[in-house]
Amino acid sequence: MPRNVVVAQSGGPSPVINNSLRGVLDTCLRNRERFGRVYGGWHGIEGVLKEELLDLSAQSAEEIALLRVTPAAGAIGTCRYKLKHSQQEDFERVIEVFRRHEVGYFFYIGGNDSMDTANKISNLAREKGLELAALGIPKTIDNDVGDSEFKLIDHTPGYGSVARYWLNAIAVANEENAGSCTSDPVLVVQTMGRKIGFIPAAARLADPQREWPLLLVLAEAGLSLEAIHAQVNETLAQRGRAIVVIGEGFHLPEVQMGAKRDAFGHVEFSASPITVAQVLVNYLNDHGLCVPGHARGQIPGTDQRGGIFLASQVDLEEAHHVGVKAAELALEGQHSQMATILRRRGSIYGVHYAGVPLHEVANSERTFPKAWLAKSKFDVTDDFLAYARPLVGQDWVSVPLVDGRPRFTRFKPIFAEKKCPPYVPVGLRPAP
Amino acid sequence: MPRNVVVAQSGGPSPVINNSLRGVLDTCLRNRERFGRVYGGWHGIEGVLKEELLDLSAQSAEEIALLRVTPAAGAIGTCRYKLKHSQQEDFERVIEVFRRHEVGYFFYIGGNDSMDTANKISNLAREKGLELAALGIPKTIDNDVGDSEFKLIDHTPGYGSVARYWLNAIAVANEENAGSCTSDPVLVVQTMGRKIGFIPAAARLADPQREWPLLLVLAEAGLSLEAIHAQVNETLAQRGRAIVVIGEGFHLPEVQMGAKRDAFGHVEFSASPITVAQVLVNYLNDHGLCVPGHARGQIPGTDQRGGIFLASQVDLEEAHHVGVKAAELALEGQHSQMATILRRRGSIYGVHYAGVPLHEVANSERTFPKAWLAKSKFDVTDDFLAYARPLVGQDWVSVPLVDGRPRFTRFKPIFAEKKCPPYVPVGLRPAP
Repeated sequence: MPRNVVVAQSGGPSPVINNSLRGVLDTCLRNRERFGRVYGGWHGIEGVLKEELLDLSAQSAEEIALLRVTPAAGAIGTCRYKLKHSQQEDFERVIEVFRRHEVGYFFYIGGNDSMDTANKISNLAREKGLELAALGIPKTIDNDVGDSEFKLIDHTPGYGSVARYWLNAIAVANEENAGSCTSDPVLVVQTMGRKIGFIPAAARLADPQREWPLLLVLAEAGLSLEAIHAQVNETLAQRGRAIVVIGEGFHLPEVQMGAKRDAFGHVEFSASPITVAQVLVNYLNDHGLCVPGHARGQIPGTDQRGGIFLASQVDLEEAHHVGVKAAELALEGQHSQMATILRRRGSIYGVHYAGVPLHEVANSERTFPKAWLAKSKFDVTDDFLAYARPLVGQDWVSVPLVDGRPRFTRFKPIFAEKKCPPYVPVGLRPAP
Repeated sequence: MPRNVVVAQSGGPSPVINNSLRGVLDTCLRNRERFGRVYGGWHGIEGVLKEELLDLSAQSAEEIALLRVTPAAGAIGTCRYKLKHSQQEDFERVIEVFRRHEVGYFFYIGGNDSMDTANKISNLAREKGLELAALGIPKTIDNDVGDSEFKLIDHTPGYGSVARYWLNAIAVANEENAGSCTSDPVLVVQTMGRKIGFIPAAARLADPQREWPLLLVLAEAGLSLEAIHAQVNETLAQRGRAIVVIGEGFHLPEVQMGAKRDAFGHVEFSASPITVAQVLVNYLNDHGLCVPGHARGQIPGTDQRGGIFLASQVDLEEAHHVGVKAAELALEGQHSQMATILRRRGSIYGVHYAGVPLHEVANSERTFPKAWLAKSKFDVTDDFLAYARPLVGQDWVSVPLVDGRPRFTRFKPIFAEKKCPPYVPVGLRPAP
């Protein structure tokens, strides 16, 4: 007897997140003897709690196929709502919604926090006698899921695309900086990635031979504004220009202070009263450059995680495969696993897909390996490049256009009939 | 007897500026009976003053062809150096350099200021008995060359590409905002374009049917932060989310104060201690949104004028043609003209190329037509869309990749032999 499926996304989107959704959906729709209707949690777990379940089985093959080139999470939405361990009521609501909709499979696309949530839901379902296979699908441009030894996962879907975004953005920035350095000798660009340096590190892929005056500032390098200023002026003295790539999570008291925070307690860097890039631009301009002209700053923000035009073909395929793998794990009768990407040994890039226990992922932490920071502190090593280079692939992703505008997935608003009483998630209730 | 050629670029680059250079170069190299060696002013007029003349005739056909997909001004450089009318010494130096290098043709790629400079050089050459044809080639992403009646020029090369950049950036931003609005309901994005609204206006091309909660803030609309805040909250109340596109030149005393200025006296918005986007984000967050979550900001900066990946095919072809036209005007014996793009009448888009007197362009000013501002003040009219839509074209520009990295023009550093005494441009001399 087939049982229904819920798939939901959590946290910040990526250019290829919808490919994991597509992988789940394709596999479920091909195995009707096991999977019933497939519902998408409308805006992630919030949609599950509010019983807003988008009926993905009712959507056209055309719109599902377009998920391939649809960036971010516009198709079914995401959220930052956190199912806190203390909010038992929320967990019980999830189980209730699943039970009433005869849900036997729950696929949760997200980072470490989401794997933890999926694991807790899986355990509670068992406790409550609900037959539920909860499976995790990794996603984050930050590449911070799993462990630092890359045993649980080699890299997360989404990272290859943001790396390719930065490869191309820095290639273009170099043309700009080389061309207009007589007036704007210093270009400061701020990347996402929080305090983990995988994203700013990827800028080096633009210039693997180190021919350009490109300085990388990873939070992990522990640099001060003074040290960056000195290095910028040294670079200007030698080359007349400099490009500084700085991670948004570079430690600055003035950015931390007054910063906005999301439901997970994480600083929302782009909603803060001042950005790291702005602080650095001001510091450089106030303390002086050793050549005429100014430092200028830019912050592409969410463009880097929505940049389907610059996405990696490798990442796109892998994101799909990992979604397929999660559904295959369910078909095999597995539960409480995260579908993962593991790299094959050898100098030719290749991966295989597997399952790893959710609780192991939930209890792991990934940092940027210290050994990949160059001695100069303003660069990464060739070992990092060897790791990251295959992830960005070779070719362009071709996005279909209609009258010159990109054609993205537009699902019809067909929702599952409501069967549960109304509910306000604990975290969304007005303070007493 | 052929005479040599100098071509130089001025001001901020565009994704297709090198196509105008290619148009000049292609035409000169095909007409050797008239054009001798072709030199590029290394970093624009600064290179002419310093007698740094890159020998473009000595470059390979391969590198010249790659100018087609090489954004910004990395190939020969640009500058913001202004030949001020009071700096007669600089003008005489230009004439001296041209005379010693037997330069008979000067092509200057830039905006209104550059057309003024080219005109003054043309007049001085005549005065000094130097046979020189000075010709202007329009370029600016801001679309602010010529007059507001579009009689001198319909649109500038570069504008179509930045318009297409914003079409795609806002399409992606809408996926992000729709997907993650439960935590980040307001996305503020800052465009270039100074105080002229053509660039923020182009964001509307992403949503010509006005289906999205997209608010455009052109400096010309004369809006206050209070009015924007009220409109954002009204939009949030109706749609739960909002995207605000704001031009960098939106009038704010806190941005003007302490702002850095370039040699033309223009504010350098991206080098300022605070940006318009940041001020707006802070105002919205401080004064409160009527839904949970925060406003976040982003500033793609020079990425929008280097974005060859998102460039317009129409713009790219036109930028080349206008360069060709300038060289053809020279072949016809014309001088002191700007090659221009004029739109044919009728509902099917078509242009023709012509010459208009430099002095007319130099004395003209273009503003965003008031009639194209919507009554709501947060939008532009369909007449604007009818004007702008053809400029963004249909297809993707395909950028060649080598090992996954974009392959841009790399000229060999072959410079003309120096024949003049060393010279420091007036504006670059240390203060007395």
